[in-house]
Amino acid sequence: MKFSALLTSAGINIGLCSLFLSLYSLLRKQPGFVYVYFGRRISEENDTNEGSCILDRFVPSPSWIVRAWEYKQDDILSIAGLDAVVFLRILVFSIRVFSIAAVVCVFGVLPLNYFGQEIHPASIHSESLDAFTIANIPEGSRWLWVHCLALYIISFSACILLYFEYKNIASMRLSHIIQSPTNYSHFAVLVRAIPQENGESISDAVQKFFMNYHASSYLSHQVVYRTGKVQRLMSNAEWVYKNLVRLKSTAISKTCVPITYRCGLCGGTSDSFQLYRNEFEPDEKKPCPNNSDSRTKAKECLAAFVFFKTRYAAVIGTQLLQSSNPMLWVTDLAPEPHDVYWSNLWIPYRQLWLRQITVLLASIVFMFLFLIPVTFVQGLTQLDKLQQMFPFLKAILAKTVMTQLVTGYLPSVILQLFFYMVPPTMMLFSAMEGWISRSGRKKSACFKVISFTIWNIFFVNVLSGSVISQLDAITTPKSIPILLAKAVPRQATFFITYVLTSGWVSLASEVLQLFALVYNAVSKYVFRVKDDPNSVPSFPYHTEVPKLLLFGLLGFTCSILAPLILPFLLFYFFFGYVVYRNQIINVYCSKYETQGQIWPIVHNTTVFSLILTQIIALGVFGTKKSPVTMSFTVPLLICTLLFNEYCRQRFSPIFSNFSAQDLIEKDRDDEKHGRMEEIHQMLHSIYSQFPADTINRDVHDANSRQTQQI
Amino acid sequence: MKFSALLTSAGINIGLCSLFLSLYSLLRKQPGFVYVYFGRRISEENDTNEGSCILDRFVPSPSWIVRAWEYKQDDILSIAGLDAVVFLRILVFSIRVFSIAAVVCVFGVLPLNYFGQEIHPASIHSESLDAFTIANIPEGSRWLWVHCLALYIISFSACILLYFEYKNIASMRLSHIIQSPTNYSHFAVLVRAIPQENGESISDAVQKFFMNYHASSYLSHQVVYRTGKVQRLMSNAEWVYKNLVRLKSTAISKTCVPITYRCGLCGGTSDSFQLYRNEFEPDEKKPCPNNSDSRTKAKECLAAFVFFKTRYAAVIGTQLLQSSNPMLWVTDLAPEPHDVYWSNLWIPYRQLWLRQITVLLASIVFMFLFLIPVTFVQGLTQLDKLQQMFPFLKAILAKTVMTQLVTGYLPSVILQLFFYMVPPTMMLFSAMEGWISRSGRKKSACFKVISFTIWNIFFVNVLSGSVISQLDAITTPKSIPILLAKAVPRQATFFITYVLTSGWVSLASEVLQLFALVYNAVSKYVFRVKDDPNSVPSFPYHTEVPKLLLFGLLGFTCSILAPLILPFLLFYFFFGYVVYRNQIINVYCSKYETQGQIWPIVHNTTVFSLILTQIIALGVFGTKKSPVTMSFTVPLLICTLLFNEYCRQRFSPIFSNFSAQDLIEKDRDDEKHGRMEEIHQMLHSIYSQFPADTINRDVHDANSRQTQQI
Repeated sequence: MKFSALLTSAGINIGLCSLFLSLYSLLRKQPGFVYVYFGRRISEENDTNEGSCILDRFVPSPSWIVRAWEYKQDDILSIAGLDAVVFLRILVFSIRVFSIAAVVCVFGVLPLNYFGQEIHPASIHSESLDAFTIANIPEGSRWLWVHCLALYIISFSACILLYFEYKNIASMRLSHIIQSPTNYSHFAVLVRAIPQENGESISDAVQKFFMNYHASSYLSHQVVYRTGKVQRLMSNAEWVYKNLVRLKSTAISKTCVPITYRCGLCGGTSDSFQLYRNEFEPDEKKPCPNNSDSRTKAKECLAAFVFFKTRYAAVIGTQLLQSSNPMLWVTDLAPEPHDVYWSNLWIPYRQLWLRQITVLLASIVFMFLFLIPVTFVQGLTQLDKLQQMFPFLKAILAKTVMTQLVTGYLPSVILQLFFYMVPPTMMLFSAMEGWISRSGRKKSACFKVISFTIWNIFFVNVLSGSVISQLDAITTPKSIPILLAKAVPRQATFFITYVLTSGWVSLASEVLQLFALVYNAVSKYVFRVKDDPNSVPSFPYHTEVPKLLLFGLLGFTCSILAPLILPFLLFYFFFGYVVYRNQIINVYCSKYETQGQIWPIVHNTTVFSLILTQIIALGVFGTKKSPVTMSFTVPLLICTLLFNEYCRQRFSPIFSNFSAQDLIEKDRDDEKHGRMEEIHQMLHSIYSQFPADTINRDVHDANSRQTQQI
Repeated sequence: MKFSALLTSAGINIGLCSLFLSLYSLLRKQPGFVYVYFGRRISEENDTNEGSCILDRFVPSPSWIVRAWEYKQDDILSIAGLDAVVFLRILVFSIRVFSIAAVVCVFGVLPLNYFGQEIHPASIHSESLDAFTIANIPEGSRWLWVHCLALYIISFSACILLYFEYKNIASMRLSHIIQSPTNYSHFAVLVRAIPQENGESISDAVQKFFMNYHASSYLSHQVVYRTGKVQRLMSNAEWVYKNLVRLKSTAISKTCVPITYRCGLCGGTSDSFQLYRNEFEPDEKKPCPNNSDSRTKAKECLAAFVFFKTRYAAVIGTQLLQSSNPMLWVTDLAPEPHDVYWSNLWIPYRQLWLRQITVLLASIVFMFLFLIPVTFVQGLTQLDKLQQMFPFLKAILAKTVMTQLVTGYLPSVILQLFFYMVPPTMMLFSAMEGWISRSGRKKSACFKVISFTIWNIFFVNVLSGSVISQLDAITTPKSIPILLAKAVPRQATFFITYVLTSGWVSLASEVLQLFALVYNAVSKYVFRVKDDPNSVPSFPYHTEVPKLLLFGLLGFTCSILAPLILPFLLFYFFFGYVVYRNQIINVYCSKYETQGQIWPIVHNTTVFSLILTQIIALGVFGTKKSPVTMSFTVPLLICTLLFNEYCRQRFSPIFSNFSAQDLIEKDRDDEKHGRMEEIHQMLHSIYSQFPADTINRDVHDANSRQTQQI
C-alpha cells in the first residue's frame, strides 16, 4: 500500500467521523431522541432539561466534549459504579503507555526505519508504507539496538503503569466494598444441587441442612422456581386471568383514572391495565414461603437462596465444601438481585461441566469457521492475486481511486460488518454455559470475544495472505516467531487502516448510537410505541473491552516495527476516552456491579500483548541477524513473565474473594449502627424471583411512574 | 532384536531375581539383619520373634510370600495407614486391567500380528520380535478392526475400574477421616507472612489478630523459630554446653548407671550421654510461651501455628482470605506434627513464588540434561550404528552372546543406574520449593519423578535413535501421532527388556534391600554403630509410584501394538503386589499420612496413558491406511476425556478439602464424649518445635528405650 492510499483512507474516515459527530451534536439536542442519548439520566436522575434555546438546537457544537471532561472520577464512581471507572482506567492506561511509546518510537525508531537502506527514499507521497517499517532496516544493521532500547522502555513503562493501575484498582475495589451502601448479595448464598430424600420438599431439605450445620448463622431461605419460557407464559396467563376475575368483583372506579405521565419533553398516558395490576402488587411483595398462591405450584428446582445473619457467615458458607459429595450442596455467593440470571438457575448442577466443555468446543469451531470471511477480506488487500482470480476486475481496478478504496478501505469495513455478529454469539454461548449472574455471563463473553478478536483479527491477518494454506506453519511452534517477525511489518498498513475504520468510525458511531437511533425512530414513528425509560441498555463491556485490548495489542506489537500506527492509535484512545465518558454519563445505566472484576482480564491480556511483542521482536532481531539484541530481549521476556506472576500472587485473589477482615469489620459496623435487623428483613423481598421477572417489569414501571408523579 | 535375545535377557533376569529372592529368604531369618528386614515391626510392634529353628534359618523358603498374602486390607490399613492401602490399590488396579488386556491382546491381537503378511513366519527362535508387533500387519488390512475393538475393551475396562477405584478410595478417605483417632493437625492452622507493626512481637501480633477476628474459636498459638542449619548447630552447642555445666553442679551418681538395652536379639549399652540429656527433657516439653530459656532467644520467624477450638473453625481459618492483602496472613491447614517440615517454615512467604518458578525451570533443565545418558543408551540398541562409530567394537560384538547381552541387557542396566540419582534430586528440588510438610514435599517429588520418567524413559526412547536430531520433529505437534505410531512398535522390544530389568530385578532388589543391607553391615561391623530402631525408613512413594505408573503407561501403549509385553508386565504387577505388601508390613514405617492424596495423581497419569495410547492408535491406523478404525478411535478419545473431567468434578475436591458436614459431625462427636478439653491441652506440646527437631531425636530415642525397658 502506498502512503497516498493511507491518506485516502484517513480522509474518508475523518470525513465519516466528522459527519457522525456533527449529527450527534445536533440530534442530542432534539427532544425526540432524548431516550437514545440520555437514557441513564432520565431513568436515574430524571434530568432531561438540557436548557438549550431553539437556535442552538440546530447548530452543531462540541460542548458535550467539554461536559464529558468536567466529570471527576469520583462523580463517575457514584454515577456509574466501579466497573465504569475501571473501564475508563483501561483508556487512561493506554493513553499513558502509548504516549511514551509514541514519543520513543516516532522520534527514535521511525527516522531510523525511513532512512534505512533497503528501500531508497522516494517522494514521500508515492512512498510505499513499508519504508516506514523495520523491513527497511538492512540485515546486521548496528542501529537495531535503538529498537531494542525502545522495546525495553515500552515494556518497562507498561509494566510499571500496569502495576500501579492494578494496585490502584484493587484498593478502589476494597474501599468500594467497605464504603458502599449495604450490598444484600453479601448476605445471600446460592445453593444448588440440593439432594431430596423421601419426597421431602426442597424447602424442608434446605432448612434441615442449614439448621443442622449452620444453626448459629442461618437466617432463612428462598427456593428457586423453574421458569422455562413456556411455563412462565402459562403461569403468567393464569395469574393475569385470576386477577382480572378478582378485579371484576372489586370497585375499580377509584383507581381507574387514566394518569398522564409527562417525561418532561413529551406527554403520554400510561396504560391503565398496568394500574389494575398494580393494585395486587403488594401481594407479590410478600416473602415467598408465605404466599401460597399459584406461584408456589411452579416446579421447584434444586436450587435455593440461603440467607445468613452476617456477611462473614455467608462467605464461610460459600468457601467450604459443604458435603462430602462435591456434586451436592454446591454453594456460591449470590449475585446482586438485579444481576441474578434466573433462567439459568434451574439447570441441574450435574449438567454444567458438560455444558462448559460443549461451549468451549463450539467457541473454537466458531473461531475457525470465521476464517472464511477473514480469508476473503485478506484477499482484497492483495490486488494482484485477486485480479489473477477474477480477470474482469481489472477494468474496474484500473482507476487509482478504486484501487485505493478497495485496498485501503473495503477490507476493514467488511471485517467490521462480520464482526457485529460475534458478541451476540458469544453472549449466547456464555448463557448456555450456565452462569448464575448476568455479570458473570458478560465477563465470560468478554473473555471469549477477546480470544476471538485476537485470533481472528491479529493472528489470522498476520499469518496469512491465504490463511488456510499457512495453517500448517502455525502448527510448527518453533517457526512462529520468525513467521510473525516477517508478517507483522507487512501487515502493519492493514492494521493502520483498521485503526482508522474500526477504531475511529466505530467510536463515532458509538456516540451517534446508530442502531438505537434507527430502532427508536422506527418504533416511535412507525409502530407508535412510547419510549420506555426503563429499557436503558447497560454498558456493553463484552464488546468494548475487547476492542480496546485489541488496539492495545496492535499498538504494542507494531510499536517498534511500524511506529506509524502509534499517532493514529493515540488519537483513538483520546477520542475514546471522551466518547466513553460521555456515554457512561448519559446513555448507559449500570444495573449491576462486578466491582472491577474485569481488570484481571485486562491485565492478563496486556501482559500477553507485551510478551507477544517481545517474541516478535526476538524473531525480527533473528531475521535481521543481530544476536546481541536477541540476547538482550530474552531477559526482558523473563522479567515480564515474573512480573505477571508477581501480580497474580499479589492482586488477583482480591478480585475473586472477600477478605475475612473486611467482612467482619463491615458486619460489626452494621451491628453497631443497628442496621442488621433492617437488612435481614429486606433480604427476602429483594431476592423474590417473580417480581424481578420480565412480565412483572411493567408492574414495576407503572409503580415507579406513579411515584414519579407523586 | 531377535526372539532369542529376548530369551537371553529373560534368562539373566530370572536368574538374578531367583538369586536375590533366595538371598532374601535366607537373610531375613538372620538376627543380624533384623533391623533391615523388620524395621517397622521392631519400632512399632516390638515383634522380633520369628520363632525359627536353626536348620530353618539356612534353607531358602517362600513362606514370606504366603505370610504377605495373609494380611487383609483392613490389617494393612491399621498397620500402615491409608497411603499404603492406596499404593496397593494401584497394583490391584494394574493387575485387573492388564489381565483383561492380556487376555484380549494375547489371544486376539497377537496371532493376527504374527500371521500378518509383512514378515513371513520363520522358525520362532530366530524370529525378529517385530513379527509380533503391529508392524507385521499390512497396510489397509481388514483385520485392524480387531485392534480397534481391543482398544475399546481396554479403554472401557480401564475407565470403569478407575471409576470404582476412585470412588472406593474417596469413600475410604472419608471414612478414615471420620473414624480415625483424633488427628491434632485438624485443629491447627499454619499462619505465614505475619505483618509486624511498631516492633510488636510476632506472638503479640498473632494474638491480637486472631483475638480480634476469630475470638470465639481461637484457642492459642505457637510461634515458629528460625532453625537454619548453622543457627541450629550453634544454639544446640550452646544448649549442650549449658546443660553440661549444670550437670557438673548436680549429683550425677544416681542417673549415671549404664543401662543395658536389649533389642531382643542382640544386646548393647545405650549411650550414657543421652541419659544426661534426658534429665532435662521435661523442661523441653513445656509449652513454648512458658519456657523462657535460651530457646526463646532463637529468632522468631514470621510464621506461627494457631490452634482453634474446633476442626470446623480451623478449616474456616484456612479457606478464607484473611487480610485484604493476599500476601499477608497466609493460612494453611497445618501438617501432622511428624509431617511438619520445620526447616522450610522460616522461608519468607514472598519468596515462595520465585522459588517455585526457579525449581520448575531447574527441573526442566535437568530433564533435558538427562538426554545425554539416554542417547548413549539408545545407541547401544542399534548396534550397526555403534559399530560404524567405534570400529574396534566389531571384534567384541562378533560373538552372538555379547551382541545379545549388549542389545538385550546393557541398555536398561545403564539407564537404571543413571536413574538412581533422579528421586533424590527431585526431593531436593521439592524441598527448595518450600513445602511446609514432608508429605507435600514427597508428593511434589513424586509428580516430578513421574513427569521425568515418562519423558525420559518413554518419549525420548521412543522418539529417538539419535535423540537430539529428532528433537526438531517433536516441535511439530501435528506429526507426533504418526511419529509415535512408527516408533512405539519399533521400541517395544526395548520396553520388554526394560520391564525385565528395571521391573523384575528392581523388585527383587527392593525386597533384598541391597543398599540398606550394605549400609547396615558396614555401619555395624566396620564402624561398630548400634542399630537404631527409630531410623526406620518411611515408604518411598516418590520412587515407587512413578515406577508403577511408568509400567502402566508402557502396558497401555504397547498393548495393541506389541502385546508380547503384557505377560511380562502382568507377572511384574503380581510379583510387585507380594513384594510391596511384604515391605509395607515388615520394613517401612508410616510416620505421616496424606490420607490417599496420591490417588488423584495416579488417576490423572493413568488417564494420560490411556489418551496417549489412543493417540498412538490413531497414528497407527493412519499409517496403516484404515480410515474406518481411525474414525472409530476419535469418539473413544472424546469419551475418555469426558470421563476424566467427570471424575475431576466428582472426586478430586474430596482429596484437597474437608467437608463442613464431616468436620462438624466429628467436632460434635468429640464434644459429646468430652474429649475436647483433652485435645486442647495436647495441642501445644504436640506442635512443639524443638523436641521434634533432629538433634533432639536422640533424646526422644533414649526416652523411648527407657520406657521400653520399664
